[in-house]
Amino acid sequence: MKIIQNGTLVTPKGLYDLSLAIYNGKIVEIGEITPKEDDEIIDASGCLVFPGFIDAHTHLDLPVGGNLTADDFESGTRAAAAGGTTTIVDFATQYEGDTLLNALDTWKRKAEGKAHVNYAFHMAVCDWNDNARHELKALREAGVSSLKVYMAYDTALNDAEILELLEDAKKYGFIVGCHCENGSVITNRQERLKAGGRFGTDAHPLAHPAEAEAEAISRFCYLGKLSGCPINIVHLSTRLGLQEVKKAKEQGVKVYVESCPQYMILDESKYELPDFEGAKYVCSPPLRRAEDIYALREAVIVGDIDTIATDHCSFRFDTQKNLGRDDFTKIPNGCPGIEHRPVIMKKIFGDQISAMDYCRLMSSNPAKVFGMYPRKGALQEGADADITVWDPGVKWTIRANDMEQNVDYTPFEGLKVEGRPRFVFVNGELAAENGRSTDIHMGEYVRR
Amino acid sequence: MKIIQNGTLVTPKGLYDLSLAIYNGKIVEIGEITPKEDDEIIDASGCLVFPGFIDAHTHLDLPVGGNLTADDFESGTRAAAAGGTTTIVDFATQYEGDTLLNALDTWKRKAEGKAHVNYAFHMAVCDWNDNARHELKALREAGVSSLKVYMAYDTALNDAEILELLEDAKKYGFIVGCHCENGSVITNRQERLKAGGRFGTDAHPLAHPAEAEAEAISRFCYLGKLSGCPINIVHLSTRLGLQEVKKAKEQGVKVYVESCPQYMILDESKYELPDFEGAKYVCSPPLRRAEDIYALREAVIVGDIDTIATDHCSFRFDTQKNLGRDDFTKIPNGCPGIEHRPVIMKKIFGDQISAMDYCRLMSSNPAKVFGMYPRKGALQEGADADITVWDPGVKWTIRANDMEQNVDYTPFEGLKVEGRPRFVFVNGELAAENGRSTDIHMGEYVRR
Amino acid sequence: MKIIQNGTLVTPKGLYDLSLAIYNGKIVEIGEITPKEDDEIIDASGCLVFPGFIDAHTHLDLPVGGNLTADDFESGTRAAAAGGTTTIVDFATQYEGDTLLNALDTWKRKAEGKAHVNYAFHMAVCDWNDNARHELKALREAGVSSLKVYMAYDTALNDAEILELLEDAKKYGFIVGCHCENGSVITNRQERLKAGGRFGTDAHPLAHPAEAEAEAISRFCYLGKLSGCPINIVHLSTRLGLQEVKKAKEQGVKVYVESCPQYMILDESKYELPDFEGAKYVCSPPLRRAEDIYALREAVIVGDIDTIATDHCSFRFDTQKNLGRDDFTKIPNGCPGIEHRPVIMKKIFGDQISAMDYCRLMSSNPAKVFGMYPRKGALQEGADADITVWDPGVKWTIRANDMEQNVDYTPFEGLKVEGRPRFVFVNGELAAENGRSTDIHMGEYVRR
Amino acid sequence: MKIIQNGTLVTPKGLYDLSLAIYNGKIVEIGEITPKEDDEIIDASGCLVFPGFIDAHTHLDLPVGGNLTADDFESGTRAAAAGGTTTIVDFATQYEGDTLLNALDTWKRKAEGKAHVNYAFHMAVCDWNDNARHELKALREAGVSSLKVYMAYDTALNDAEILELLEDAKKYGFIVGCHCENGSVITNRQERLKAGGRFGTDAHPLAHPAEAEAEAISRFCYLGKLSGCPINIVHLSTRLGLQEVKKAKEQGVKVYVESCPQYMILDESKYELPDFEGAKYVCSPPLRRAEDIYALREAVIVGDIDTIATDHCSFRFDTQKNLGRDDFTKIPNGCPGIEHRPVIMKKIFGDQISAMDYCRLMSSNPAKVFGMYPRKGALQEGADADITVWDPGVKWTIRANDMEQNVDYTPFEGLKVEGRPRFVFVNGELAAENGRSTDIHMGEYVRR
Repeated sequence: MKIIQNGTLVTPKGLYDLSLAIYNGKIVEIGEITPKEDDEIIDASGCLVFPGFIDAHTHLDLPVGGNLTADDFESGTRAAAAGGTTTIVDFATQYEGDTLLNALDTWKRKAEGKAHVNYAFHMAVCDWNDNARHELKALREAGVSSLKVYMAYDTALNDAEILELLEDAKKYGFIVGCHCENGSVITNRQERLKAGGRFGTDAHPLAHPAEAEAEAISRFCYLGKLSGCPINIVHLSTRLGLQEVKKAKEQGVKVYVESCPQYMILDESKYELPDFEGAKYVCSPPLRRAEDIYALREAVIVGDIDTIATDHCSFRFDTQKNLGRDDFTKIPNGCPGIEHRPVIMKKIFGDQISAMDYCRLMSSNPAKVFGMYPRKGALQEGADADITVWDPGVKWTIRANDMEQNVDYTPFEGLKVEGRPRFVFVNGELAAENGRSTDIHMGEYVRR
Repeated sequence: MKIIQNGTLVTPKGLYDLSLAIYNGKIVEIGEITPKEDDEIIDASGCLVFPGFIDAHTHLDLPVGGNLTADDFESGTRAAAAGGTTTIVDFATQYEGDTLLNALDTWKRKAEGKAHVNYAFHMAVCDWNDNARHELKALREAGVSSLKVYMAYDTALNDAEILELLEDAKKYGFIVGCHCENGSVITNRQERLKAGGRFGTDAHPLAHPAEAEAEAISRFCYLGKLSGCPINIVHLSTRLGLQEVKKAKEQGVKVYVESCPQYMILDESKYELPDFEGAKYVCSPPLRRAEDIYALREAVIVGDIDTIATDHCSFRFDTQKNLGRDDFTKIPNGCPGIEHRPVIMKKIFGDQISAMDYCRLMSSNPAKVFGMYPRKGALQEGADADITVWDPGVKWTIRANDMEQNVDYTPFEGLKVEGRPRFVFVNGELAAENGRSTDIHMGEYVRR
Repeated sequence: MKIIQNGTLVTPKGLYDLSLAIYNGKIVEIGEITPKEDDEIIDASGCLVFPGFIDAHTHLDLPVGGNLTADDFESGTRAAAAGGTTTIVDFATQYEGDTLLNALDTWKRKAEGKAHVNYAFHMAVCDWNDNARHELKALREAGVSSLKVYMAYDTALNDAEILELLEDAKKYGFIVGCHCENGSVITNRQERLKAGGRFGTDAHPLAHPAEAEAEAISRFCYLGKLSGCPINIVHLSTRLGLQEVKKAKEQGVKVYVESCPQYMILDESKYELPDFEGAKYVCSPPLRRAEDIYALREAVIVGDIDTIATDHCSFRFDTQKNLGRDDFTKIPNGCPGIEHRPVIMKKIFGDQISAMDYCRLMSSNPAKVFGMYPRKGALQEGADADITVWDPGVKWTIRANDMEQNVDYTPFEGLKVEGRPRFVFVNGELAAENGRSTDIHMGEYVRR
Repeated sequence: MKIIQNGTLVTPKGLYDLSLAIYNGKIVEIGEITPKEDDEIIDASGCLVFPGFIDAHTHLDLPVGGNLTADDFESGTRAAAAGGTTTIVDFATQYEGDTLLNALDTWKRKAEGKAHVNYAFHMAVCDWNDNARHELKALREAGVSSLKVYMAYDTALNDAEILELLEDAKKYGFIVGCHCENGSVITNRQERLKAGGRFGTDAHPLAHPAEAEAEAISRFCYLGKLSGCPINIVHLSTRLGLQEVKKAKEQGVKVYVESCPQYMILDESKYELPDFEGAKYVCSPPLRRAEDIYALREAVIVGDIDTIATDHCSFRFDTQKNLGRDDFTKIPNGCPGIEHRPVIMKKIFGDQISAMDYCRLMSSNPAKVFGMYPRKGALQEGADADITVWDPGVKWTIRANDMEQNVDYTPFEGLKVEGRPRFVFVNGELAAENGRSTDIHMGEYVRR
């Protein structure tokens, strides 16, 4: 048995100065534990012991245009572990002509044997048809409890397709996430910006107005209302969007909200950086304005945001982002973040949110919303031994040349931060220590 | 000179016991007037004298599928005059491949020489392209100050097209109305209802959920917000839709709201009538529920609805509506109403709204919103002599076989009502008396 | 056993064509029942069989100024039974210097032996002090689960007192109702109206602006929020007030809403009636405007109003109301209604609300909110046999000279209505038949 | 003539690289100015030239309990000038038994001859009576255009008094500000906290819950609505309070909002500081929570807050604050701030608000709301030459031992800030340079 001692256990309900014993990948005891001779003692003194953090929005080994994301399941999950994340939920994508089950299979193969942390998959449905409809039951049985649709990009479904999907999803107990931006408006804006000679990164936020997000959230929520299916707004980034969610909740819609750290600490002025530096921050939705940052922080504090994820989707700056040097619409969209989410959240909020709330946002809520609770997301006997021992006192600076992510930059470069995982356990084994991977691939597929 | 005596003049600001003199088609004097010998005296004793009512949403001589509406500009405007309406704003429709100016020309020819009341045209843009874009200036100069777009039907534009149109419309000072329903959802619902064996009129409201209207209103308002162009929600029918308008106003969107009498007095139980009787009420959006009726009435009273129109679009029950006897989606959509709007509004609201507010809703506001004020919509010297002398005491019953509308039914059949226009003047000439047309075609095209 | 046959049983969840057997004051069986020889058969053919209606806001035998209400527990409950109500919740009032338990005792004595229907008591606390605080536990044990406070009148508590009361009430599981009007504003308005020479009934609504109600609701809800105690807004009458409740619910306040039929069918124009007729309608809050009527109806339909009561508080027009002939502030406030609530609700809503919703508003919800469910408010085996067999087809006209209420007028005089209880059972015995009391005093005190 | 050269002039509408000439206390020219020989050149290179900042909420030379505030009009306005503020609006207070005009006189005498910057007075009405009512006209003529009332403290008026005052204030064109907290609740909380043994500063925020502010704002807004008088919410501090203002605006209430820098950068954790340090931050309303800070910042950015003031009310920590060492309710309420408002706002918002918006919040809006525009608050010819030449590049640290305020601490101690007024002109004369008073008493009474 491993025994984590001298730390403070964190749950959404309270803090407990107790020990925790791990055996055979599970939490087997919580309490005042007297170690036996051959027990391995993990010293968590001065640390907060969290149920391992869950990042429910990552894109690893994802083909985008002709590119693959810079991080695959090896480097991506290595970075996740280093930062304190013990489970990710990535996106298996069914492209046009493909089947859902085959897509799941493809993504499972991408991850198999490579993962430092546990992984599950949302299924991104990009070709809604009778076959897909009939696969839903099997997909659910294969351990997938969440679907995703797009309202923008080539991968978008139209409103009727989304509504049909939602109605069927409800039958089998899925929750359906959505990338909410009005694709018609965005594509048109991009074209007109370019027609007007705007090719630089400063045009990117102009092509993605806050209204395009808020509108799509309104629309998706109405589809959710018509269907009765629980829905999830992924990477919500705007004040206007939050107002739409509030409206939907008042109407009785079962809607959850995810946001990401980058939207709460960086703003759109980044797109005006010279020397194509703005490309480092090109993601969709884009970074927003101060009013959005404050609204999102307020929402986190008062509980209007349910989960925090990263939308990690990394591309190298020197080669991949460079494809869009002459045309911002050709910049692969996405930023790295999987490694730094926990520490950035701490940077943003400090003591403004309690350790219990932090646990809720980063671990318990994602586990609950995505059907993994209490196996994940809870410090309790019988749960998987995914544990992050967080040392709040360590001061350090984020540097791209000193991270596990396999990409040549980070949007958080140079930020002075506090806190780091002293130990990270995945299925009971030490996956990272003091912010470094131990190079043990303990990650398993999580059936939900 | 004609002198209207002994009545009470109504304006949005107050009631005045004054006389009004008409000469050469204009109001030339308001005050205590001593008639001269050869003046024609119009006795308005016991009556309210309104600026002639304006119906800013009619469809006369409109081809729908292979059908033409039952009322053309002859019968439709005859009925309008009989009911107290002195100006209509009909819709010129630019179909695919057509030009805006040609569409205007076509519709002007439909009306020319036939109209009992004045007429103007909104331009329904169904094919947004570079040519249409370039015609906007000329269209504005041709006296058209309002455009219309559809979010449903074959005539729908997509969101990007609507946004572009709005941006250009703003440059030239148009207001843009929209049929707000989510076409994708509605078509899909129709198909699935029929696939499930539902072909009767009772399926009609199921294919048009309130959410489909509210969603589209939200979307159109966001497009309005992005463009800065003033917009108009036509035939708003739901409580949810009103909430969307309220949200948009709070966000600073310049949005006006039109509703119609049928949505405030009839409900969706009509679609369950036997013997295909429900078809008489098939219009889009459909009749709604009690909660919607009450919400609309409340909105009228507190001033959240700006204008009342009819969406008059009549089809004979015996032949035209009958086309959908076996398939509710084949029923030509639309109801007659142009003749009964004033009296139905009175029936609904009685003394709940003042004569001033009634004037505002039925006459002044439509004139202002659509660029005809104070030439229309105002009792003041210099204004066109379009005048409705309303006798509030007359009690009668609405009967299809006793009306001017050229259609074999009315949705208001059998309703006991109070009030009728004693005299209706169009451009200074008597166009109707005691609810009957005088058969004088005084209507002219109104450049706005 | 009595067996109710051939009717349709109504519950909030559905309609059931089943029989129901009564024995020893209880419902003993529901189902397909084959009567035995000596069973008494109650023929409910064509009728809806409801759990007996509950009127959770009545004032019987209440001293107001030097007056006693016209109805005491004898005549008031006789009228209740005649109309279909089988349980009332009246108000025991603790006046200044009195104790809560003594007040309860006083009111129990007023009712004992006289009641045709069951009765419980809210406790109106008008003198909040240490003694009252210490009595709460005993009061709760004596079967009282609801308190009431006033924000207007001599009986008002100040905000700090209300907050203290709420905090203590929460400890013992009370719900606290409140008469929400800003007493300071109202008294001031009354004085200034009279100083300006306004003594007639038409000044009454001016002294009670909608804002005075909405303000007080906002305030009471904030006190409720601070305390965490469930609260009840009694006799809510305005659109503005509904908006305040909505706001409070969004903030997480546990707030219930009661309204009364008079606020949904009569308006403030009544106060302008000549010959002091307006006095018949003087109650507080007063009748309101059309916008309020529509907003309340909408709220009933969409479920924003939880319970419907009467605020029955009757005074004779010829003598008691007459005290205020020269000064509207001296008119005893209150209207009769206990007998006509069920039929007036039917008059207002017809088929706009289903029988299930009607059951919820009139019976199940009051039972739940006030701690009597499922003993009251439910047709289920083991429940008290309080049953209203409603015959929907009977057409009649409300007349003061043809009612059981012991008062010389009704605000609903002359209304043509449909439906009447064919049989009303209280604790298993027939308390009324065809709208007439059987003169059996079966009512008992209901411990909650 | 003095000529300010090489700077960038700031107005709410834009930035202009122009010169500005001062003569005889007025701005006499704006444009490209060629200085004459004897013109005095003021070099504003690298600086933003603002219309002098206005602090519309200060308390100088104010008796509180037996204490006088630490700053009188000499030291307070000296500090104001040093920080860049050229006009203050202080509060003349009419105590019980006093007259309004006498109160004004008293306060004018306090300021006369001592003021480094211009000053005007709000009139705090604490004894509403017939005499006060009759003085309003004379008060308005004496140059006072704003009243203030309290809903808490000994100085509170009751709701009826406030409503009467508002109605009379409207007649004479006043705006009425209000300290919105529910005094009844706060006093009760204070007593109960002390009864429970809570005497330390950490009890202060518990006695002033956010709900007590929001409730009072709701109430005051309803009184404003009833009266039609424009109102001002002073020192708004909470998210809940902002929601109330939003509600009131939707209802058509003419309501303005003031907030203060301390509520946007400091939080209630200050009250837990040891060694009575918390007393330095004791003001009413108290410092709030992170969610309030973010909500206020968001409101500033989107324009929901109209003016920024300080509520400067300074008491020495070593002696005056010390009076409450054993009882937090005896701590004189108030914090110093008059000197640091401009730089703290810059600290908080950086580039999140533009120079134009900064000008609007700090100068133009206060001038407009309080009837001094465009004499104050505008850089235009003919306006008073109150000018703040802001050097954005200076970096410094706030230290109590290095400030002009006559008090032994500042709540902003140790904050590293950027920017400082290089020159401050009051009525055309140099009142401060590089953050130091020039010791010239140019301040005059501003009739509004």
